[in-house]
Amino acid sequence: MNDLDRLAREDRDAVEARLDALVGRLASHHDGMREAIRYSLLGGGKRMRPLLCLWTHDVMTREAAHLRDAALDAACALECVHTYSLVHDDLPCMDNDDFRRGRPSSHVRFGEAIAVLAGDALLNLAFEILSTLGERHRVAPETALAATASLAYASGTAGLISGQAMDLAPPEPRDAAVVDSIHVRKTGHLIAAAMETGAIFAGSGEAVRRRIRSAGLEAGLAFQIADDLLDLEGKQETLGKTPGKDVDRGKLTLPAVIGTEPARARAREHMEAALAGCPDAKGTPLEALIRHIVERSA
Amino acid sequence: MNDLDRLAREDRDAVEARLDALVGRLASHHDGMREAIRYSLLGGGKRMRPLLCLWTHDVMTREAAHLRDAALDAACALECVHTYSLVHDDLPCMDNDDFRRGRPSSHVRFGEAIAVLAGDALLNLAFEILSTLGERHRVAPETALAATASLAYASGTAGLISGQAMDLAPPEPRDAAVVDSIHVRKTGHLIAAAMETGAIFAGSGEAVRRRIRSAGLEAGLAFQIADDLLDLEGKQETLGKTPGKDVDRGKLTLPAVIGTEPARARAREHMEAALAGCPDAKGTPLEALIRHIVERSA
Repeated sequence: MNDLDRLAREDRDAVEARLDALVGRLASHHDGMREAIRYSLLGGGKRMRPLLCLWTHDVMTREAAHLRDAALDAACALECVHTYSLVHDDLPCMDNDDFRRGRPSSHVRFGEAIAVLAGDALLNLAFEILSTLGERHRVAPETALAATASLAYASGTAGLISGQAMDLAPPEPRDAAVVDSIHVRKTGHLIAAAMETGAIFAGSGEAVRRRIRSAGLEAGLAFQIADDLLDLEGKQETLGKTPGKDVDRGKLTLPAVIGTEPARARAREHMEAALAGCPDAKGTPLEALIRHIVERSA
Repeated sequence: MNDLDRLAREDRDAVEARLDALVGRLASHHDGMREAIRYSLLGGGKRMRPLLCLWTHDVMTREAAHLRDAALDAACALECVHTYSLVHDDLPCMDNDDFRRGRPSSHVRFGEAIAVLAGDALLNLAFEILSTLGERHRVAPETALAATASLAYASGTAGLISGQAMDLAPPEPRDAAVVDSIHVRKTGHLIAAAMETGAIFAGSGEAVRRRIRSAGLEAGLAFQIADDLLDLEGKQETLGKTPGKDVDRGKLTLPAVIGTEPARARAREHMEAALAGCPDAKGTPLEALIRHIVERSA
């Protein structure tokens, strides 16, 4: 795990530096807006989606990794979309969360209007980054366009947006199948897009990209269950950690529906399915990262 | 003007039908979300940006208009972005408008959470449409990517987002220069992108596109002043029309800062500059449309 930690720190630093540079290039004469964007985007976070993108790129690349810089920009675009979804989900009319990563949420710090606009700006920024890749890197237009389409699908009504809508008002019956379908949209598609994007910049063909996307969907499902287990255990320990918000709110989670141990087993199954779909990861940091995603909750 | 009306009706119908089809293709298992998107997107509107895109395409096309179907999709993407900005601007934390086009605003009809998400979905949909153009039309990837970049710039922090942020809290001094800089962002860039997008699908080169974009910026400034004059005159007549919201709110408009007649003259100057930058429009419906934008307020 030491090796994983070191590599993760290196690439997290690369992502932070690149996010900083990309936001710095933004045309904006509104200082408050720029500050709100930086506050949420550069305020910590595991950078899991960027790492999955970069490391999938690394294991799938057969030649010299000449598109890794472009993949880094795309990894930043993924993080912009993830951050936008957090900013909007935290709004009073949504999950009404006043804290995010130990600091006041964007709407608490800047007011609701700027938080809505900063979220809009972050979603938009992802597409600005991807559609202008060719200005900064030697990327074929079809490669940039494929990455744009992959992200737009994951962040659209097939993915994030329906996921959040279903999370706010889950359909009946509130069983494991419904939980799964929320997880696929809310978490699965964006992580699938992260891994697919890595494959796109590695030059993988359509069939391989489809396989990697399926593996990413499994990794995303494993991650969401593990995340819900962590929230639950924070509650059970009652020591130092913030009490589990999910239980307090009656949020629909897999542990709540089928129990803790069966949920943990399900997370492991999804993880193994992810690794089986991505044999190129065997013995690499990508495998270690995907295993870590689930095992941190064990 | 009869000819203009007929052509406008034809192409408005084409835009409506295409928007309907594009929303119908959306992957979404959340019925409420789809309904909220359709409610705002298909609930009327002048479709000015789509018409400017299509008619600029028509005057700039030298060969057979084999990309007009693709330009129609791009025109729909522009309307998605325009509609998203209306849905988010109407929110209680922004302009707090309960009515839009004579009907309850999205947040009044569907609640704030769904309105935020529907706005997000509409912004995202624009990029889904543009990044997948090649699946539906014979469009070169660089053409689709150019249209994506043009729209992303206009809807980002250089354009719409900063425009709305400045509109909410205009910087000092509140003079004509500040009004101009808000108008450029809030209205100018998206109309510039509409005309540039038409030129992109007409196959125009970089230099021509730049010229058309500048013409579009002038048309956008003319339009915004005309719009503010209409709002003001609705107030003065006090007959049948909704009272002028701008005055009631102390909104920063050009008529409020320099007076009605000087503002009207300024709108005409911008309109003439737009036409001068787009000589290909001479004698065409595009010229008639741009003139109509300003003259409806005369």
